[in-house]
Amino acid sequence: MNKEELLQILHPMKLIGLGGNPALNEKIAQILKKPLIETAVQHFSDGEIQVNIGESVRGCDVFVIQSIQDPVNENFMELEIVLDALHRASAHRINVVVPYLAYSRSDTKTRSREPITAKLIANLLQITGLDHLIALDLHASQIQGFYNVPVDHLHAMPLLAQYFIDNGIATKEEDDIVVVSPDHSGAKLARNFGQCFDAPIAIVDQRRARYDADVHDMIGDVKDKKCIIVDDLIDTGSRISSSTKSVLAAGAKKVYVASTHALLSQNATEVLNELPIEQIVVTDTIKHSHYPDRMVRISVDLLLARGINYVYNDRSMHLLSESKLK
Amino acid sequence: MNKEELLQILHPMKLIGLGGNPALNEKIAQILKKPLIETAVQHFSDGEIQVNIGESVRGCDVFVIQSIQDPVNENFMELEIVLDALHRASAHRINVVVPYLAYSRSDTKTRSREPITAKLIANLLQITGLDHLIALDLHASQIQGFYNVPVDHLHAMPLLAQYFIDNGIATKEEDDIVVVSPDHSGAKLARNFGQCFDAPIAIVDQRRARYDADVHDMIGDVKDKKCIIVDDLIDTGSRISSSTKSVLAAGAKKVYVASTHALLSQNATEVLNELPIEQIVVTDTIKHSHYPDRMVRISVDLLLARGINYVYNDRSMHLLSESKLK
Amino acid sequence: MNKEELLQILHPMKLIGLGGNPALNEKIAQILKKPLIETAVQHFSDGEIQVNIGESVRGCDVFVIQSIQDPVNENFMELEIVLDALHRASAHRINVVVPYLAYSRSDTKTRSREPITAKLIANLLQITGLDHLIALDLHASQIQGFYNVPVDHLHAMPLLAQYFIDNGIATKEEDDIVVVSPDHSGAKLARNFGQCFDAPIAIVDQRRARYDADVHDMIGDVKDKKCIIVDDLIDTGSRISSSTKSVLAAGAKKVYVASTHALLSQNATEVLNELPIEQIVVTDTIKHSHYPDRMVRISVDLLLARGINYVYNDRSMHLLSESKLK
Amino acid sequence: MNKEELLQILHPMKLIGLGGNPALNEKIAQILKKPLIETAVQHFSDGEIQVNIGESVRGCDVFVIQSIQDPVNENFMELEIVLDALHRASAHRINVVVPYLAYSRSDTKTRSREPITAKLIANLLQITGLDHLIALDLHASQIQGFYNVPVDHLHAMPLLAQYFIDNGIATKEEDDIVVVSPDHSGAKLARNFGQCFDAPIAIVDQRRARYDADVHDMIGDVKDKKCIIVDDLIDTGSRISSSTKSVLAAGAKKVYVASTHALLSQNATEVLNELPIEQIVVTDTIKHSHYPDRMVRISVDLLLARGINYVYNDRSMHLLSESKLK
Amino acid sequence: MNKEELLQILHPMKLIGLGGNPALNEKIAQILKKPLIETAVQHFSDGEIQVNIGESVRGCDVFVIQSIQDPVNENFMELEIVLDALHRASAHRINVVVPYLAYSRSDTKTRSREPITAKLIANLLQITGLDHLIALDLHASQIQGFYNVPVDHLHAMPLLAQYFIDNGIATKEEDDIVVVSPDHSGAKLARNFGQCFDAPIAIVDQRRARYDADVHDMIGDVKDKKCIIVDDLIDTGSRISSSTKSVLAAGAKKVYVASTHALLSQNATEVLNELPIEQIVVTDTIKHSHYPDRMVRISVDLLLARGINYVYNDRSMHLLSESKLK
Amino acid sequence: MNKEELLQILHPMKLIGLGGNPALNEKIAQILKKPLIETAVQHFSDGEIQVNIGESVRGCDVFVIQSIQDPVNENFMELEIVLDALHRASAHRINVVVPYLAYSRSDTKTRSREPITAKLIANLLQITGLDHLIALDLHASQIQGFYNVPVDHLHAMPLLAQYFIDNGIATKEEDDIVVVSPDHSGAKLARNFGQCFDAPIAIVDQRRARYDADVHDMIGDVKDKKCIIVDDLIDTGSRISSSTKSVLAAGAKKVYVASTHALLSQNATEVLNELPIEQIVVTDTIKHSHYPDRMVRISVDLLLARGINYVYNDRSMHLLSESKLK
Repeated sequence: MNKEELLQILHPMKLIGLGGNPALNEKIAQILKKPLIETAVQHFSDGEIQVNIGESVRGCDVFVIQSIQDPVNENFMELEIVLDALHRASAHRINVVVPYLAYSRSDTKTRSREPITAKLIANLLQITGLDHLIALDLHASQIQGFYNVPVDHLHAMPLLAQYFIDNGIATKEEDDIVVVSPDHSGAKLARNFGQCFDAPIAIVDQRRARYDADVHDMIGDVKDKKCIIVDDLIDTGSRISSSTKSVLAAGAKKVYVASTHALLSQNATEVLNELPIEQIVVTDTIKHSHYPDRMVRISVDLLLARGINYVYNDRSMHLLSESKLK
Repeated sequence: MNKEELLQILHPMKLIGLGGNPALNEKIAQILKKPLIETAVQHFSDGEIQVNIGESVRGCDVFVIQSIQDPVNENFMELEIVLDALHRASAHRINVVVPYLAYSRSDTKTRSREPITAKLIANLLQITGLDHLIALDLHASQIQGFYNVPVDHLHAMPLLAQYFIDNGIATKEEDDIVVVSPDHSGAKLARNFGQCFDAPIAIVDQRRARYDADVHDMIGDVKDKKCIIVDDLIDTGSRISSSTKSVLAAGAKKVYVASTHALLSQNATEVLNELPIEQIVVTDTIKHSHYPDRMVRISVDLLLARGINYVYNDRSMHLLSESKLK
Repeated sequence: MNKEELLQILHPMKLIGLGGNPALNEKIAQILKKPLIETAVQHFSDGEIQVNIGESVRGCDVFVIQSIQDPVNENFMELEIVLDALHRASAHRINVVVPYLAYSRSDTKTRSREPITAKLIANLLQITGLDHLIALDLHASQIQGFYNVPVDHLHAMPLLAQYFIDNGIATKEEDDIVVVSPDHSGAKLARNFGQCFDAPIAIVDQRRARYDADVHDMIGDVKDKKCIIVDDLIDTGSRISSSTKSVLAAGAKKVYVASTHALLSQNATEVLNELPIEQIVVTDTIKHSHYPDRMVRISVDLLLARGINYVYNDRSMHLLSESKLK
Repeated sequence: MNKEELLQILHPMKLIGLGGNPALNEKIAQILKKPLIETAVQHFSDGEIQVNIGESVRGCDVFVIQSIQDPVNENFMELEIVLDALHRASAHRINVVVPYLAYSRSDTKTRSREPITAKLIANLLQITGLDHLIALDLHASQIQGFYNVPVDHLHAMPLLAQYFIDNGIATKEEDDIVVVSPDHSGAKLARNFGQCFDAPIAIVDQRRARYDADVHDMIGDVKDKKCIIVDDLIDTGSRISSSTKSVLAAGAKKVYVASTHALLSQNATEVLNELPIEQIVVTDTIKHSHYPDRMVRISVDLLLARGINYVYNDRSMHLLSESKLK
Repeated sequence: MNKEELLQILHPMKLIGLGGNPALNEKIAQILKKPLIETAVQHFSDGEIQVNIGESVRGCDVFVIQSIQDPVNENFMELEIVLDALHRASAHRINVVVPYLAYSRSDTKTRSREPITAKLIANLLQITGLDHLIALDLHASQIQGFYNVPVDHLHAMPLLAQYFIDNGIATKEEDDIVVVSPDHSGAKLARNFGQCFDAPIAIVDQRRARYDADVHDMIGDVKDKKCIIVDDLIDTGSRISSSTKSVLAAGAKKVYVASTHALLSQNATEVLNELPIEQIVVTDTIKHSHYPDRMVRISVDLLLARGINYVYNDRSMHLLSESKLK
Repeated sequence: MNKEELLQILHPMKLIGLGGNPALNEKIAQILKKPLIETAVQHFSDGEIQVNIGESVRGCDVFVIQSIQDPVNENFMELEIVLDALHRASAHRINVVVPYLAYSRSDTKTRSREPITAKLIANLLQITGLDHLIALDLHASQIQGFYNVPVDHLHAMPLLAQYFIDNGIATKEEDDIVVVSPDHSGAKLARNFGQCFDAPIAIVDQRRARYDADVHDMIGDVKDKKCIIVDDLIDTGSRISSSTKSVLAAGAKKVYVASTHALLSQNATEVLNELPIEQIVVTDTIKHSHYPDRMVRISVDLLLARGINYVYNDRSMHLLSESKLK
């Protein structure tokens, strides 16, 4: 017997898909050729959640997939309660797969008496029996260090870059692409993304200026270039909006957006629809009922399915990253 | 200087009232003659909560009042995030006052693969720096044991009993009162409540019977009596409804209800309005926009304010219980 | 190779039987067809206990069976010391099987400055490397929540009920059985037990009354019925005694007793011998040198052996409960 | 106000004396001029212990005195249960004073699959809320390191040495004293004790020898000397017995014994009574109903009372050691 | 009595200065008008460190100042061992003040099988009894979240900016200053620093380019400007060196450097001496025997002394930040 | 498949050898016929250590061999950082093998305000994910109890004793051997060592005497004997030096030394070279560039390799000890 066969006897893999993004859960399960086990999750009229796992998980290696998207507190508590149930039901190992992990922007105290909610989330998951976390394009890579359990941090950005190559928008040979960071913190992400096309970067320098007005200077040259604005997430769309205006004012030829997590909160869809952007390339980590025009959604299903498979079979994630861009 | 003066210098009391039940927070603060400190709690459009404590809490003895009522997960996470902020802001001691603590009914595994969410809640609060809990009429007194930190478990039931005495409905001398438990688990609560009027008890014996029908037998005699149905909480009202029908079918003269926590979820208000109940006596642990007819709300403000005061000043809670019914 | 064969190679099952109830340990071992491994437990003249495990347990899945019966502190510390030895000897997993778990009645603070000893016991076991607990008819099901490790809570009450059916005392068809709870807290247990015969229940309403006398009213009708008084344990026998008198005074035809744990402390045997009870049906969770007359002891050996077998082989306990009454 | 006055207001000292050695508790309390607070400790007929602390300890600095002597498991669990009650009753700090700490000899694994019970005891005390430990002449000083909480390790040996000086048995000027260790492990203790009189030491070299017989050689010269056999504890008396024979066989003039903890288990009293020892000088850490002849008991009451006082008032223990021999 | 007087009686402040940067320790102590307590720290010939705290710290609020500079492992272990000694000596609260915290750059896993040493350091400090951390210009602000204890994160960058203003190099009115980040990650720091003079920023875009050569493009305009290269630390000087060349190649008029932590490892001093930099403005968080030419060292003594004072007296750090630039 | 084959598939053994004593690591690896996996450990110019594990360890049973020798803090931190990396890389179990464990002599507080560094080391290793420790001739066997994880404590002393037998220096039949302890604490070790040849022991009684001079009396007879001075470690050689002089002054015929750990710090080599010692028999737990004359180094490679093999395969260590002296 080989390792995979032994593991399947000793610690069968069980997949649980929770309510954040059921469509993505299903796609992952289909790739893994494993059913999502039936899990009764009821949201009661008084607001409480009740959970009952539909089949035995004793000795199993369980992977719980939950996108902690809006409503984030409901989805997070649903996850927590399922973890408690799994732990008390004698699961062998509890792995949590979070396509989107809310509160990741709350990763530091910027003012006195603020929480560090991303760390709070880490503490709460760990106290409830989390053994392993698989996450995707975290807002800050330091969040891995908020956990004492092993974290596998996967990257969807190469998938987005590949889209621009596959569709002839960007190539490694031409020089008309500039990758734009919408703020200073994003400069490193822009540089990494730009590396895929050997492209220069520019930064939108948003700040409060001398004469009380807000200034959005461009740092770096975008004139007559195709600009790809890169951000880890799109929330209300206002940062994309102001960045688009800045790059256009600075003479950009065309504007694209690449972003892993499309939160699209408030009236983001309307905001984005009104912008002269060619394409907005995102992933399917977040589920919505409808999406902005010109939004292209690349699925992370294969990436996460492979992540689960590699963790289950003790294969190095390194191999997964190597195969990133084919 | 006496102890109170010393404590006010060394570890000033700070009150924080969160969003579950602001009216009750205000009443408690007024009795304590302390302002609720300004706490910016924002619920963002993507579902995340952001918190900023408005003034320094370094070295302070902080009491956070939060009724974990519907929406329970929002209110619970709001509390958790505030605790994280307080802890990181170097509060001396963090006390949490929960007029109503959700998930208390999930205090045991009744079937395989269920969570024990009341214990999960305890673990989550404790990992976030909870030093002390003040709770009110918990669904099961064993929940105290879910905590390793000290828990002061206060009782509002004597306040409700006092209402029946003060309004001449029940006396210790007459024999026309029967206290009714709507199910078997509540028999002990009914007995304790009945002790206030030296009244006998009866139990609604709800069970699945031989010929497939549900049976609601009365155990104990209620004929021609005033019945006070006692329960720790009223959720959808269905249990009150069936109990009322049972006691009336068994010949009860009049029906009253006494309950600490009025959740009133789903269409509870309509259900209760249609029942031939004289009065429904509850407390104000839960806030609603409107209430059923004939509902009397007794405030627990003084009880909780005293609880806070005694904890702050290291006075024995025993003294508080002694003064329960004047 | 199937799972069982693999486990036997990787993590052999080892059984350890401690001194609380050796006869039951032996019966369980015989059903499992595994020897109890030799464990030298010495109680020294200065009161200390010394332990030496007789064979290697490295990598083994160890099940320690110990009934925490009188002398409870000796038996509990014996268990603790064995757990420490097992943990330091590199056992793979340490499961504790407690036919009777002392201190379970101390599950809440009823007065100021009392301990919650059932929780203390849970904390002490967990700090000493307990991985899994198998318990039987705990005084309160909430005690499961005192543990963060998985608890399998088995029920012997169906075995006792089966005895009454097998011996023609109770049937599902006749109506002459009433199940009696000796106090209010036991109403739910009585209802569950009654469900086995579709029988009504009654409650002994023990309370302090107006004119200084103690009252033992019957709630519910027992006249001309066979009464089965149900309790989770029999301690000194005084509660059985007063309940028996109450049901007879209320016209009961015959009295039976069903109880899982027969502590029989003080002069319980004499007390019980003098009561006009037909039969006292208990289990063998507690060992004594002699027993009251008319006491029938049903063994829980098969139930616990199956529990151990299912835990070892990761089989769902749900299957065990399903086969409860054949 | 000075520190002591402030502490008495903010965190009053409360003394609790448990059942191991009540006479010593009383003496300590009298020196401290503080009453032992009433603590109801009941040992029930089924073997369980129930505890109720008689007065409020909220915010208090509590010192619990318990000699963990025979019956050691009963006395230890009594202490544990009291600690749980104190912690849940919101004591400010819980200090435990153990004149004698059982299981200290079980401080290492000498064979495979043995426990390290002294470490288990440390873990159990710490998980139950122990903040500070005051111990006396521990069997091995490394046991301090078993604790993560601060341990104040006091020494009674100087009191015993002082007795020999005060009674003219040993002086710093004469040369007729030899301090004898009854085994190899005790050589360091003997050296320290000998330092008080500037005396040489000798060791009883107990070992299994070539020709199957046990050998008790003397290492060092005791001929025509007064020998003081020093040991941290006297258990069954057999080691004192064989040592006495060895030193006499080697020509010793007179034999004395000095030992902190007089366990006197089994028939130790008879054994000691039959030995030609001048005096056996011990402390009163252990209570017995009667004592061997020629046993002198020096009280550690003042030493422990000072220890408590210094800990309460944050005075350096160093000062206590300095004043050891006046 | 006011709070400060009470604290000085109850929990006196004690300062301990360890061997990383003794001159800074002394300056802080002088500002606080408190002596550094004598602490014997011996580095033995076998490499072990032995520590003895020179005076009692029972009940004291201790502040240990240690710059974790080269040799970082020696200095870190020295700190750890002192923390262990303080904890066992019953200190009331242990605060650690780290002018420079080594390993902060190891804050994330950039490749498979790397450690997150900054988190390891946090875990090690916390397990050893750390109650509070005062840090200065951490490499990433997320490192605060690696700690569960409160962290006060102070900023020396405003002091450096003030130097440029005070010396007429930069003003808020003129436009000839550009703040330059030597890499992408530093863009945000450059923006914050630039805000002090309302200056634009530029970024050195260091990357591997198409034709195998390394490219150091400037993003942003530095032509004919005074450039201040800002970095949180100067290690070997190579990044400063390449950045200087880049800005000069891009036409910069003059080059300045501002950096909090001057590690100056390897031959940094020579490297810096050869660069055409006007001034290198750093703080004194790191001690060296000699410094590069044109290096200006601004002391953080007052900032850290105030930090200690505010923490001791429970004053809001917010007040400290407000007074940042007078 | 047998257990070993199954384990190799499920949890392959991986060996990591760190920088303390690479030669010993290599020898152990050769015996186990397993390569040491490539582990990049860089000591940077600023003093920080960076680590990258060269191959996947997911699901592996990893054994990290590190002698915590001089420079002890560097070597210890190197180990800690590797443990962090292994834990985050999802190793199945992390075993640490320490031929020499520094700081073991700091196992107790001998004066006020000292640390217990051996316990600190234990806490630090455990918080970093240590699952199992294999140690060799610890300074005090109580150090096992500083750990909550299982510790396998191996003994090299029998190997040293065997050398004396194999080389005809000591036999079980002759009487000219005396085993000498250089101080009181070592008497027990000397007795155990002496047992190998059925030899008597003597002790060097080093103490401060009446007339201000230091006294080095011999306790026990060494006249005309071959003396083997036994100590667990040789540090600066000064204790060996004074002991050698003492035994020679007392008439010893020949002097040998046996010691497990040859630290040889300061000028130990010169000190030892000048002493009239026949042979100094040590192990190779510590690596040096050169060694004293007449030093014989016995390798512990086989002993440790077997220890690793037994732990990996869940074989009883008891078997290892049994085969100690063939």
